Amino acid sequence: MKHTQTIMIKDNMTKEDVLKFIKEMYQHHLSFHRLIGIQVNSINPERAEMQIKMRSDLVGNPIFQILHGGVTASLLDSTGGMAAAANIINRLDDLSPENIQRNLSKLGTIDLRIDYLRPGRGDLFIASARIIRQGNKVAVARMEMHNGKGDEIALGTATYLVG
Amino acid sequence: MKHTQTIMIKDNMTKEDVLKFIKEMYQHHLSFHRLIGIQVNSINPERAEMQIKMRSDLVGNPIFQILHGGVTASLLDSTGGMAAAANIINRLDDLSPENIQRNLSKLGTIDLRIDYLRPGRGDLFIASARIIRQGNKVAVARMEMHNGKGDEIALGTATYLVG
Amino acid sequence: MKHTQTIMIKDNMTKEDVLKFIKEMYQHHLSFHRLIGIQVNSINPERAEMQIKMRSDLVGNPIFQILHGGVTASLLDSTGGMAAAANIINRLDDLSPENIQRNLSKLGTIDLRIDYLRPGRGDLFIASARIIRQGNKVAVARMEMHNGKGDEIALGTATYLVG
Amino acid sequence: MKHTQTIMIKDNMTKEDVLKFIKEMYQHHLSFHRLIGIQVNSINPERAEMQIKMRSDLVGNPIFQILHGGVTASLLDSTGGMAAAANIINRLDDLSPENIQRNLSKLGTIDLRIDYLRPGRGDLFIASARIIRQGNKVAVARMEMHNGKGDEIALGTATYLVG
Repeated sequence: MKHTQTIMIKDNMTKEDVLKFIKEMYQHHLSFHRLIGIQVNSINPERAEMQIKMRSDLVGNPIFQILHGGVTASLLDSTGGMAAAANIINRLDDLSPENIQRNLSKLGTIDLRIDYLRPGRGDLFIASARIIRQGNKVAVARMEMHNGKGDEIALGTATYLVG
Repeated sequence: MKHTQTIMIKDNMTKEDVLKFIKEMYQHHLSFHRLIGIQVNSINPERAEMQIKMRSDLVGNPIFQILHGGVTASLLDSTGGMAAAANIINRLDDLSPENIQRNLSKLGTIDLRIDYLRPGRGDLFIASARIIRQGNKVAVARMEMHNGKGDEIALGTATYLVG
Repeated sequence: MKHTQTIMIKDNMTKEDVLKFIKEMYQHHLSFHRLIGIQVNSINPERAEMQIKMRSDLVGNPIFQILHGGVTASLLDSTGGMAAAANIINRLDDLSPENIQRNLSKLGTIDLRIDYLRPGRGDLFIASARIIRQGNKVAVARMEMHNGKGDEIALGTATYLVG
Repeated sequence: MKHTQTIMIKDNMTKEDVLKFIKEMYQHHLSFHRLIGIQVNSINPERAEMQIKMRSDLVGNPIFQILHGGVTASLLDSTGGMAAAANIINRLDDLSPENIQRNLSKLGTIDLRIDYLRPGRGDLFIASARIIRQGNKVAVARMEMHNGKGDEIALGTATYLVG
């Protein structure tokens, strides 16, 4: 059955292959991403981008049709986390499946801050992340989310455990 | 049809009635809460409590069965927001429907900070919030989330616009 | 005596005059700024800048000669606060001394987050701030601090009560 | 000359000796602490406490006699950092001077968040910290500061690199 299929880290992958693998994983193998409709747009060591389309069941206010702040937080945390994953891979010398797996499995969010700048109105929300501090143990990412018209909706900062 | 039913703020409500109304609204009329399964346990001016049951589609890690950090952020933001709503009501003198509506509609999250202390393992996650700064313009809430065994999973702080 | 001299908000000031007045106040009339040596470089509604010179009594580590994190936090909070003050003035229609005073006296920091990116090494530290959310009740500023060589030492975000 | 005297980590120290050494270091050998008057009250693996007396040169507002927010941030960062240092020592098996030194020298603040709850009025401000997340790489501390009357002035959270 489809949902028991697992994706595999193969031997002899290049860094580019591993980034594709991570993109695939965040896109198709994280059940919460599927639930709320997160799509992965791009991933590279400098910048990661995800998006989400507005849906009636993502609304957080019964009067106004605006995105629930938790959806914003979810999208920003995931985008920052994927940027941290790309950053981990970019720093690896040993690309054996075991080493990739060991390094990615250590990744976790330590803390997250979201600044909500405007109400989340729009049909589409695009989030991007870049790493502002990289180290052997922690990485810090800054994220921003805007709607399809380019209005800045929210900014975020997150600290990730990476080693 | 059921989904077009709206809940009404009635005349001559006591503060207790309004808190019940808010509980009802957060429980049944926020579509994102229904999507991820947020339940409201209690609301009063001192403390608000919500919970969520673990489900396979709330998982944020394809290897480990742990709650997505965005679900934690969503639950903590909602619990803090409901505590701020209760606090707004508690400070109102005029309980006319118009005044209640006007005051609740101003409520919005300005910023949210989450500290993830332990991986989100468990069958049930319970979040509570209390107001640590109350004012005419902003309220600050502190939140905590633990699992059914009592392990502290995450702490949060949020600043809300209330006036 | 000098220390009892007060600076005065005069009648018929232009917005530019008021910004000069605020610059003067932050430069010469805040005793903590004098204690640690904060200098005001520039202030306008888009951007505020302050700096501090390294001194042996600002060191926060007995082994390494690096700036105490509290000095960084102080500089970033003050720079963001001055940007918020400029923003308040820029939005005023009534520039009577009473109205200026009433509006500036409401200014206060609600919350502050600092991300320390690199150890605070250098002879000079320059901080700048810009307002990312402006409103009648709260303003949010983002700040950055770099040393004289241009190394980014810290980033900050602060929420200010402005109304 | 006195200011070139260094304090020494000696051989055969017990954990209690090392905590006394850290207390001494934070009290007498951090020049910024001397500049603003930070005093160390107590240190143990569960809780650290520092205090500062109000002085006219710590004032951050030319109109109201309230503590500069940067002083609050400095005191909270230092108290949390000292708690993290105590926590590092408490987890060490090897108490050789080299190992103590190596572990303490890695300690650094990754991020710091302060919530300002009330204006900083009072003659004395007391800050305490406790570790809410401890690990091999990062520790998270929560801090609170109240004045001599017991009014809660500010709360803080900080993430420290510890390994």
